[in-house]
Amino acid sequence: MNSKKTGVWLIGAYGDISTTLMVGCHAIHKGLVSDTGLVTALSPINQLNLIDLNQLVFGGHDIIDKSVFQQAEQIGSHSRTFPYTLVQQLQNELEENNKNICTLPELSWDPMSPDNTQSSLVELSNLLRERLRSFIEQNNLDRVVMVNLSSAEPYIELSEQHDNLDDFEQLISNDRKDQILPSMLCAYAAFKEHCSYLNFSPNIGCAIGSLKDLALRQNTSFYGNDGKTGETLLKTALAPMFAERNLRIMSWEGINLLGNGDGKTLSDTEKCKNKVNNKEAVLNNILGYPVHAGVSINYVPSLGDWKTAWDLIHFQGFLDVPMTMQFTWQGCDSILAAPLVIDMIRLTDFAERNNESGPMHHFACFFKNPIEINEHSLFKQFEMLLKYTYQHLENNN
Amino acid sequence: MNSKKTGVWLIGAYGDISTTLMVGCHAIHKGLVSDTGLVTALSPINQLNLIDLNQLVFGGHDIIDKSVFQQAEQIGSHSRTFPYTLVQQLQNELEENNKNICTLPELSWDPMSPDNTQSSLVELSNLLRERLRSFIEQNNLDRVVMVNLSSAEPYIELSEQHDNLDDFEQLISNDRKDQILPSMLCAYAAFKEHCSYLNFSPNIGCAIGSLKDLALRQNTSFYGNDGKTGETLLKTALAPMFAERNLRIMSWEGINLLGNGDGKTLSDTEKCKNKVNNKEAVLNNILGYPVHAGVSINYVPSLGDWKTAWDLIHFQGFLDVPMTMQFTWQGCDSILAAPLVIDMIRLTDFAERNNESGPMHHFACFFKNPIEINEHSLFKQFEMLLKYTYQHLENNN
Amino acid sequence: MNSKKTGVWLIGAYGDISTTLMVGCHAIHKGLVSDTGLVTALSPINQLNLIDLNQLVFGGHDIIDKSVFQQAEQIGSHSRTFPYTLVQQLQNELEENNKNICTLPELSWDPMSPDNTQSSLVELSNLLRERLRSFIEQNNLDRVVMVNLSSAEPYIELSEQHDNLDDFEQLISNDRKDQILPSMLCAYAAFKEHCSYLNFSPNIGCAIGSLKDLALRQNTSFYGNDGKTGETLLKTALAPMFAERNLRIMSWEGINLLGNGDGKTLSDTEKCKNKVNNKEAVLNNILGYPVHAGVSINYVPSLGDWKTAWDLIHFQGFLDVPMTMQFTWQGCDSILAAPLVIDMIRLTDFAERNNESGPMHHFACFFKNPIEINEHSLFKQFEMLLKYTYQHLENNN
Amino acid sequence: MNSKKTGVWLIGAYGDISTTLMVGCHAIHKGLVSDTGLVTALSPINQLNLIDLNQLVFGGHDIIDKSVFQQAEQIGSHSRTFPYTLVQQLQNELEENNKNICTLPELSWDPMSPDNTQSSLVELSNLLRERLRSFIEQNNLDRVVMVNLSSAEPYIELSEQHDNLDDFEQLISNDRKDQILPSMLCAYAAFKEHCSYLNFSPNIGCAIGSLKDLALRQNTSFYGNDGKTGETLLKTALAPMFAERNLRIMSWEGINLLGNGDGKTLSDTEKCKNKVNNKEAVLNNILGYPVHAGVSINYVPSLGDWKTAWDLIHFQGFLDVPMTMQFTWQGCDSILAAPLVIDMIRLTDFAERNNESGPMHHFACFFKNPIEINEHSLFKQFEMLLKYTYQHLENNN
Repeated sequence: MNSKKTGVWLIGAYGDISTTLMVGCHAIHKGLVSDTGLVTALSPINQLNLIDLNQLVFGGHDIIDKSVFQQAEQIGSHSRTFPYTLVQQLQNELEENNKNICTLPELSWDPMSPDNTQSSLVELSNLLRERLRSFIEQNNLDRVVMVNLSSAEPYIELSEQHDNLDDFEQLISNDRKDQILPSMLCAYAAFKEHCSYLNFSPNIGCAIGSLKDLALRQNTSFYGNDGKTGETLLKTALAPMFAERNLRIMSWEGINLLGNGDGKTLSDTEKCKNKVNNKEAVLNNILGYPVHAGVSINYVPSLGDWKTAWDLIHFQGFLDVPMTMQFTWQGCDSILAAPLVIDMIRLTDFAERNNESGPMHHFACFFKNPIEINEHSLFKQFEMLLKYTYQHLENNN
Repeated sequence: MNSKKTGVWLIGAYGDISTTLMVGCHAIHKGLVSDTGLVTALSPINQLNLIDLNQLVFGGHDIIDKSVFQQAEQIGSHSRTFPYTLVQQLQNELEENNKNICTLPELSWDPMSPDNTQSSLVELSNLLRERLRSFIEQNNLDRVVMVNLSSAEPYIELSEQHDNLDDFEQLISNDRKDQILPSMLCAYAAFKEHCSYLNFSPNIGCAIGSLKDLALRQNTSFYGNDGKTGETLLKTALAPMFAERNLRIMSWEGINLLGNGDGKTLSDTEKCKNKVNNKEAVLNNILGYPVHAGVSINYVPSLGDWKTAWDLIHFQGFLDVPMTMQFTWQGCDSILAAPLVIDMIRLTDFAERNNESGPMHHFACFFKNPIEINEHSLFKQFEMLLKYTYQHLENNN
Repeated sequence: MNSKKTGVWLIGAYGDISTTLMVGCHAIHKGLVSDTGLVTALSPINQLNLIDLNQLVFGGHDIIDKSVFQQAEQIGSHSRTFPYTLVQQLQNELEENNKNICTLPELSWDPMSPDNTQSSLVELSNLLRERLRSFIEQNNLDRVVMVNLSSAEPYIELSEQHDNLDDFEQLISNDRKDQILPSMLCAYAAFKEHCSYLNFSPNIGCAIGSLKDLALRQNTSFYGNDGKTGETLLKTALAPMFAERNLRIMSWEGINLLGNGDGKTLSDTEKCKNKVNNKEAVLNNILGYPVHAGVSINYVPSLGDWKTAWDLIHFQGFLDVPMTMQFTWQGCDSILAAPLVIDMIRLTDFAERNNESGPMHHFACFFKNPIEINEHSLFKQFEMLLKYTYQHLENNN
Repeated sequence: MNSKKTGVWLIGAYGDISTTLMVGCHAIHKGLVSDTGLVTALSPINQLNLIDLNQLVFGGHDIIDKSVFQQAEQIGSHSRTFPYTLVQQLQNELEENNKNICTLPELSWDPMSPDNTQSSLVELSNLLRERLRSFIEQNNLDRVVMVNLSSAEPYIELSEQHDNLDDFEQLISNDRKDQILPSMLCAYAAFKEHCSYLNFSPNIGCAIGSLKDLALRQNTSFYGNDGKTGETLLKTALAPMFAERNLRIMSWEGINLLGNGDGKTLSDTEKCKNKVNNKEAVLNNILGYPVHAGVSINYVPSLGDWKTAWDLIHFQGFLDVPMTMQFTWQGCDSILAAPLVIDMIRLTDFAERNNESGPMHHFACFFKNPIEINEHSLFKQFEMLLKYTYQHLENNN
C-alpha cells in the first residue's frame, strides 16, 4: 500500500452522512466498533489491496459553519445511534478533520430564482478548484475523491447543451445558474482538478454527456446517482423473487416517513421529483411490465434520521388469486448510507491506482439510478461487483 | 410433442394442493384464468418443448374417499380463492380425474405405534405398484410422475440401513413400519415401476441413499424435499440482501399462522421437526454464521389455507447500530404450491423424454431442503434452472 | 311494531354501500348470514322495540342508471366479499328494490363550475320532493329516512348565509349552485317532506344552521357527518389508551390505501379536504395537545373496496424514551359501513316513532365528525348510545 | 404534605424495572426529563394531595449483589433508553439508594425441588421482617410500600389451605416450600409489619384468601397481579372496539418477543403458565364469547428489554366477511412498567394516609389480572380510577 494518502472531499461535510462516515472510520480504526456494514469488509472484496481507513484524509465544504465534533455529539445523541462516550474518544480525530472543511454557502443556489449579483459560476468554479488544490498540497495527498452528499436540488429539464462539453462551459461562462446546478459545477471542478467524483445524492451531478466526456478526457473515475439504502434496496431484492415465481404485481405502494433534513427537503414536491423518478423506474425494469407503484415521502419530524418505510405489495398468483405482502423497514439513514460511501471511496481509490477511469459500472448495486446500467436486480448488480473483484484478484496472481 | 400422454400420480389426491392443481390446469387450458404463478410460463423456460397442460392425466390415491369436484367446490368457497362458478365450468374434467383416484387408507401408518396385523409392507408395495400399472394401461400413458403431497409424517431417526438398498428391502420384508415411512414406500414403488418421484412434502421420501440408488438403477428422475412457498421463500430472497450489505443478522424470528390440515398436523411437535429443521438451515447457509432463528408454527383454524407469516429481522449495521425489518406475508398455501408442482411435473416429463435421470438439481429453487444442494440463495438457485434451460435451448438449435 | 313500513331513500343507491346494505338486509332476514356487524343486534340495544329488517322499504336515486341485482353480482365478485350464489338467492328482493330507484344525474353538480343553463335549484328541489312523495304513496310508507351515501363533494367555504334559513332559501331561489351543494339540497328536500336525514358521506349535508333550523321546525331527526369505519375508528379507540397512560404522541402518521370510487374521488385534493379535516381533529380532541398527525389517502386500484390503512404511532414514555406502535387494518369499506347505516336507520325510525326530533347526538360513535358533539373517544361516545338505550328501556317498564 | 417519608421496598431491587424506577424518580425530580408516563401527572389525578417523588425512600432486596448506579449505567446503555450522561448526574442519589438494598438469595427457592436444609420459612419470614423494621427505623419512615418486581415463579396448584390464614401459617411452620412461594412469604412479612403490598409480577403474591384476610386484619392495603404494560394493554383497549361494533373475533393470535431476564424465565413453560393464563382471560371477558386466542412468548436475546409484540386479529363483519387487523408494538418493558409502579406507590401512600385498607380495586387498570375485579376493558377500569379520584377531590372541598 502506498504510503501517501488519499483525500476525501465531502460536499455537505457537516451533514448526517458525512459526520457518521468520519465517526465510523475513526471508531473502526481504533477498534471501538466492528466493521459491520462495510461491503469492503466482505470476502472476497476484502482481499483486494484496498486503502486502510486511516489513510483517508477527510475534508470538504458545507453551506453552514459548524464543528464535526459537535455535530457528531448532536447527531449521535439525537438519533440514538452512537453514544456520547464514543464521540468523546474520537475528539482529536474529528477536530483534525474539521481543519480541512470550509464554509461555502455560495456553492448552493436556487436554479428557479438565480441571483446573478453574487459570485459568478466561473468565480465559484475557480474558488472550489483552489480549495481542492490547497487541500491536496497541505495534506500531501496522492489523489482526491469528491463525494456529493448534499441535499436534494430542484428538478430542472435537461437540454442538449448539457450533453456537450463546449456548450456546458458556455453555460458556465454565461453564468446560467438556472441551467447549471451546484452538483454539476462541483463535478466540473473535481474533474478539472483530476479528482474523481461520486454522487450519492439524488441530484444530477455528472450524469450528463458533457461531464462524462470531461471525466474521460481527464482520466478520472466517477459514478452515481442516489444511494440505495432503504426502500429501494428492498424493492430490488424482493421484486426478483416475485418475477421468478411468476407472481404478478398489481400494486406496489411504498410509503417513506422520515424526519431529517432530507425529509424536509423532499416534502417539497419540486425537489422530490428526481428521487421519486429514480425509485419508480426500478420495478418496471425488474418485472418487465408496467406496475402501479406509488411512492410517497412524508416528513415526520420526530423520526429524525430513522426512516420508516412501509410497503404494501398486492400481487396475483395461480388462478389469479390476489395475495399481499407488506413490510416495515426501520433503519437509520446515515448509518445505512455512510459505510457504502466509505466502500466506494476505497474502491475508487483502488481503481485510480490501477489507472482505471470513466464510469465505475461495478458500483451499480450502490445506486437507485446507476449511471449507464439498466439492470436493477440487486443480486445481478452485486455479481457485477464480484466479477470486477475476481478479475482483479486473478490479475494479481 | 408426443401424442401419448403423461400420468401424474398424486399422493394426497383429495388434498388442497392436489385439488387446486387440477382445477388450475383445467382452468388455464380452457382460458378461464391466466397462467400467472407458473414458472414454466416465464421466458425462456416457456421456450422448452414442454408438455401441454391438457396432455397431463391426473390420478393418485388418498387415505379417505371423496370427490375431486366436491372438494374443489368446498376448497374454493371455504378459502375464498376460486369461485363456485369457475368450478362448475370444470365439472366434467374434474369428474374424469376422479376415476383415476383410489382410496388407500392403509398407505398411511404411524411409525411410532405400527400395527403389523394389517397388510404388510410387501403387500402394500405390491398393491401400489399394481395401481400404478393399471393407471398406465387404462390411460395409455407414456410415463408417470408420482408427486408426494401428503401431510407431515412423524420424525424418525435415520440409520445406515436407509442408505443401502439391500438393507432397505430387508426392512420392507421384515415389515418394519417403524423404520419405513409411507413416503419412502411410495417412492420405492414408483421407482420399481420406472415412475419418477417428486416430494413436495416435508417428509423424507426418497432422500435416502437406498432409494437414490434404486432411482439411478431404474433410470428414473426424482427430487425434493418440502416445497418452498412462503416464509422460507422470503428468507432465501431477503437474507442475501443482508449478506451483500454486510448487515449482521442478530435474530430472525419467524411466526407462521395457518389453519389448514397442514397446520393441525404441524402443531404436533413431533411432526413439526422435519419442517422446522428445513426452515432453520437456510439462514446459516446463506449468511455464513450461526444466527438466532426461531421458527414457530401456530394453528389458527379461522385462517384456513391462508398462511399468515410474520417475521422480525433484528440486525446490526454500521457502528453496530441495531435496526429492524419486519414483514407480513398473507398467501394462500395451495395457490402458491400448486403451480410449482405443475412446473416440476412438466420439467420432469421433459427430463425423462430427454433420457435424463437421477436427482434434478435444477429444481433446487422449488424446495426448502433441496436434495444434494447446499445453496439456499433463491437467486443462485434460480440461475441453476436458467442454466439448465439455456443448455437445452442451445442443444436444440 | 307498527304494521306500516318505513322507507329508506338512498342517495347513491347503486353504490357499494347501498348495494351491500340491501343485500345484507335481505340475507339476514332470510337467515343466509348472521347479524354480525349490526350494532342494533347487540344487547341491550336489541331490547329496544326496533323495526324489523324486512319492514324497511328501499328506494333512492343515483346519478347513473344501473340494476341493484347486477350491481350486487359485480360488487360481491369483484371485492370477493359475498358470493354469486348468495346474490342469486336474493334476486327477487333486489329487483323489487330496483323499482324504487330513479336516475337523477342532475342532482350532482360541480360548485366550482356550476352550469346554470340546466335545471335550477328550485326545479331540482321540487323534483326530488315529488319523488319522495311518490315513493311514500306507492309503498304506503309511514315515514322515510333519507341517507346520503354519495361520494365526496368539493370543499367550499361556508358563509353566514348558510346559517340562516331565509338566506339559504334565497340562495336556492337565486340558483346559486356555487353555494348550495347537492348534499344540502337533498337534506332541504327531505326536511320539507318531513323525512329524516342521515349523512354518512364526508359532505356538509345538513350540518349548517339553516338546515338544522328547518329540521327542528319540521320535527324531523337528522345526524352526520362522515361514517367512522376504519382508520378513524381505530384512532378513537387507541388514542384514549395513550392518553390514559400519559404516553405522549409525537407523531401519528396514517396512510389509507383504497381502490374504490371513493378512493378515486379523494385522490382529488379538493375533494379530500373535508375528509382529512374530519380525520385530523379527533386526535387533538382526545389527547388535549396538538400532535403531528399526517393523513394520506392514496388511490390503489387493485385494492378495490378493501381499504388498507397503515398507521405509525411514535410516542414518548417514561424518561422521554421514544417507542413505536404500528397497525395495519385490512377491511372492506362497504362491509364496514353498511351495517352502521342499517343501525342508524332503525334507530332513527325508533326516534321518530317516539316523537323525538333534532340532532341525534347518541349517534356520535358512528361518525368522524359528529354534529354538535366534541367528544371523540369511541368509548365515551358509545356510552352516550347506551345511556339513550337504557333511558328508553326504563321508560317502557 | 407530611414531612415524614414513605419507604418503598423493592423485591428485585437490582432488576430492570426497579433500577429504571429509581433513575426516573430522581431524573424527574431534578428536572432532567419530563414526567411523561406517570398517570399521577395527569389531570385530575395530579390534583390529589400525593406524595412528592423526592419524599420516597427506596430500599429492598435482590437475590444477587450489585450496585444501583452500575446497574443504571448498564441497563441504560444496553437497552439504549437513557444515556450514560444522565446516569452520571444521578450518581449520588443512586448510591444513596444502594445503602438500603440487601442481598437475600435465600428469599428465592424452587417449589418444584425445595431444599429444606437451608433456612426455614419461619426463619426467612423473620429475617425479612427484621430488615423491614430496620429500614423503617434507619430512615425514619412513616410507612412502607412493598413492591414485588421479581421474575416469574413456577406455577403451583392452589389448595384450600391457601385460603385460610391458620392453614397458611401452618404451611409456613411446616416449612412447606412446595406450597409457599417466595411471593407469598414476602407479602406475609409485609402485612405482619403493617406494610402495604403491590404485586407487579405475574406471581401469586397476596392473591389468596389467607393473605387478603391478614391484610384486612392489619389494616394494610394491597393489590396485583401482573402489570399491564404491553400486548395485554392493547388487547384491553382494542377488544372493546370490536365488541361495540359487533365485529366477531375469530382468532386473536399474540406473539411476544423479548430478550430480557423475564423473557428467559418465561421461555420456561412452567413459569409461563401464570402469565399466559392472565393474558388469555381478558378477551373472553371483554367479548363475552370464547375466542381462539393464542399467546406465545419467544425468547429473542438481541431484543433485550425491547418487547416486540405482533398480534393478528382475524374477525368477521357484516355478511360474515372475514377481515384482519394486525399491530406491532415496540416498547421497552421497564420504561413502560416503572412509571406505573411509581403511580401505585404514590396512590397507595395516599390511601394509607386516608386510613383506607384492603384491595385497591381502583388499580384495576394497571393489571392483567386485577384482584377481585372481573372487568377488563381498559376504559371502564380507568373510570374506576377517575371515580376514586373525584370522590376524594370532592371530599376535600
